[in-house]
Amino acid sequence: MLKEIEGGVVAPKGFKANAVYCGIRTQTSAPDLGIIFSEYPATVAALFTTNEITAAPVKFSRTIARKGRARAVVVNSGNANACTGKQGYRDTQTMAQLVAKYLSINTDEVIVASTGVIGRPLPMDKIHYGIENSVHCIGSEPSHGTNISRAIMTTDTVPKSIAVKARIKDYDITIGGISKGSGMISPKLAPPGEATMLCFLTTDALVPHEVLKKCLCQSVEQSFNRITVDGHTSTNDMVVMFANGAAASIVGARHAVPLQDKNDLEVFQQALDHVTTHLAKAIVKDGEGATKFVEIAVSGARSATDADQIARAIANSPLVKTAIHGEDPNWGRIISAAGYAGVPLDEERIKLYIGDQLIFENGLPAMLEGARHAVPLQEVMKGKEIYIRLELGLGSCKATIWTCDLSQDYISINAEYHT
Amino acid sequence: MLKEIEGGVVAPKGFKANAVYCGIRTQTSAPDLGIIFSEYPATVAALFTTNEITAAPVKFSRTIARKGRARAVVVNSGNANACTGKQGYRDTQTMAQLVAKYLSINTDEVIVASTGVIGRPLPMDKIHYGIENSVHCIGSEPSHGTNISRAIMTTDTVPKSIAVKARIKDYDITIGGISKGSGMISPKLAPPGEATMLCFLTTDALVPHEVLKKCLCQSVEQSFNRITVDGHTSTNDMVVMFANGAAASIVGARHAVPLQDKNDLEVFQQALDHVTTHLAKAIVKDGEGATKFVEIAVSGARSATDADQIARAIANSPLVKTAIHGEDPNWGRIISAAGYAGVPLDEERIKLYIGDQLIFENGLPAMLEGARHAVPLQEVMKGKEIYIRLELGLGSCKATIWTCDLSQDYISINAEYHT
Repeated sequence: MLKEIEGGVVAPKGFKANAVYCGIRTQTSAPDLGIIFSEYPATVAALFTTNEITAAPVKFSRTIARKGRARAVVVNSGNANACTGKQGYRDTQTMAQLVAKYLSINTDEVIVASTGVIGRPLPMDKIHYGIENSVHCIGSEPSHGTNISRAIMTTDTVPKSIAVKARIKDYDITIGGISKGSGMISPKLAPPGEATMLCFLTTDALVPHEVLKKCLCQSVEQSFNRITVDGHTSTNDMVVMFANGAAASIVGARHAVPLQDKNDLEVFQQALDHVTTHLAKAIVKDGEGATKFVEIAVSGARSATDADQIARAIANSPLVKTAIHGEDPNWGRIISAAGYAGVPLDEERIKLYIGDQLIFENGLPAMLEGARHAVPLQEVMKGKEIYIRLELGLGSCKATIWTCDLSQDYISINAEYHT
Repeated sequence: MLKEIEGGVVAPKGFKANAVYCGIRTQTSAPDLGIIFSEYPATVAALFTTNEITAAPVKFSRTIARKGRARAVVVNSGNANACTGKQGYRDTQTMAQLVAKYLSINTDEVIVASTGVIGRPLPMDKIHYGIENSVHCIGSEPSHGTNISRAIMTTDTVPKSIAVKARIKDYDITIGGISKGSGMISPKLAPPGEATMLCFLTTDALVPHEVLKKCLCQSVEQSFNRITVDGHTSTNDMVVMFANGAAASIVGARHAVPLQDKNDLEVFQQALDHVTTHLAKAIVKDGEGATKFVEIAVSGARSATDADQIARAIANSPLVKTAIHGEDPNWGRIISAAGYAGVPLDEERIKLYIGDQLIFENGLPAMLEGARHAVPLQEVMKGKEIYIRLELGLGSCKATIWTCDLSQDYISINAEYHT
């Protein structure tokens, strides 16, 4: 049984966090630099953007994550430290060194993440001040968790945070997480592989690096790799998870064995999936200018890749997204988007549903067949959550993508944002 | 020497056209059905959408175009006749039969095209009335050319029409053309292969079918296949060209030989490219809500496909398009869009120019190097035409894509459009 609790990333035992405003952002005085810290040695697993252009912190943190052990992450908003050349990389190294110094850990135990505008040098004096002050009052009160969840926001309108407790054998483990992202959201994350998608996860379960990596990959594939706001994959996307084993060690040595039992792993995976799904959906629900959450489920495909391509084509079509914004059941835009996804289709076999209503089958609008619906389709379109289901009738593979509508506010946010 | 002249598709000798309002469109009383007719037998070449879902007129006209000869095209706006099943196909056949009857030609000499809303049955009584009346007053005055260019408009704000005269040996040939398209624009056309892209071309040159097809394919690849407004490929896109040889036959039998001489073909190709490039650019300049024309030229790629993929990723990024709309030189969005196009890149080798100004090189903003620009970049962004040039430094292949910015008006047009 999973139970949601307070505290976000500091809910698991042995994790501290804090964030401060140090002046990197010039338009607000919300916190813009934060740190998460494990009091105990921890394993780490991380996935990074597959964009060919990567920010300095992505390049740096890949090398740290590969080693499988780390104890802290430092993150700043307001500056992506991307397209900043060798100096950008040196600045990232300096951030790690400063964190290591103030936390009395090693530099190679520090993951660095950044989000914000591309192509500007980091203001290192402000960063130094921010790191020193974050560490100074670091702690594990729920307010510390809230602070860090706010420090990573850019155009986000709400902080995104969750923690769940699960029972493994005779003790509880906790997984906490925060995420951010609102625009430039179409993460395609792989193992060390501006607004940006960031997610930091903590757990007090004892999980070996390789196991943690496998669990995290599986969980991200079904959560963050399923979302898109605008189809624009960032240079800075990063999901990082720390596991410090504090839950097990507290109940005594006999339990301090790494998570490996199949049933225990299933419980852990389920808890982790709950956290990542919540945080991924929270991002699209808070997508720039979004007024509706949209789920696009494609089934009956020859391969999962085919289903994924079609779901993404629909999710990223500005015509589909604006029709949803206008609450218009313009299903022709959905069918035609499926048609240009690069996957061979048979028009006659396709079935399209919006909500529970069959809209299109046998190559024809279902309504033409005289069907009557309990709820008019126009009413379904007025909901805050729109469920689109496309059955291709070609095979047994499927994929789901979560997205949001496209509104005038998206344009305003991004056209009026000046670099 | 090419010379632009009046008349559009009726400028070439032996072509007539007309259009009327017959009531398919309910929101305006602009013409919604038109016909182009060659008084003489003509060769035809056509390219169709590669969307897997195709409208009935696309399915029908593919079979006509394959035969290589046709004399008329009938086109309606207000209804795409897509996703309409067998009845939709029968309706298209009926349209061809009616045109053939009133023009005293064969049904298999008639191409049919439609654009408008998807999934609605055609109002065949109105169509019948429209065809009869269009034929009744068909003619070759410039006003007839204007009529037909207006009949194919949907959300277009201006008609798109051009004609050019070129000298081949000792006589003139003329090529005329009209196009439409504003939203749902990302044509990927191949030989018989809603708002929609349509283009109809006429010439009085004598061009064998196979030659015409080759010239048209080459021309479309460098024009209509280079544009995108919203990345949404329509179910109804079609480019059709008729060649009736009237120019040659008029000056006497000795010239009435098909175009085959290499130099003559070059002149013809050049004239055709002039027409298709003009009509393709006219579409993106009139893209839904567009305020700026944008050219994205990618060079130094390992393959033309790589260059094309990168140019399209940039052109279709809502973040790039909104930044251009906001006149903000947010070049980080351009670089990051290039990075997710699925093409391996070397950040250090990339050079990015906006207008004549070098923005990014050696993995760094060029401005950081102390360069000073004659015209501030902010001024460049205020222009009506924005030229983005990305040199990858990896090879010798290139591609150009033309697009427009993304404004609040695009959202209004498409969210407030109700089916």
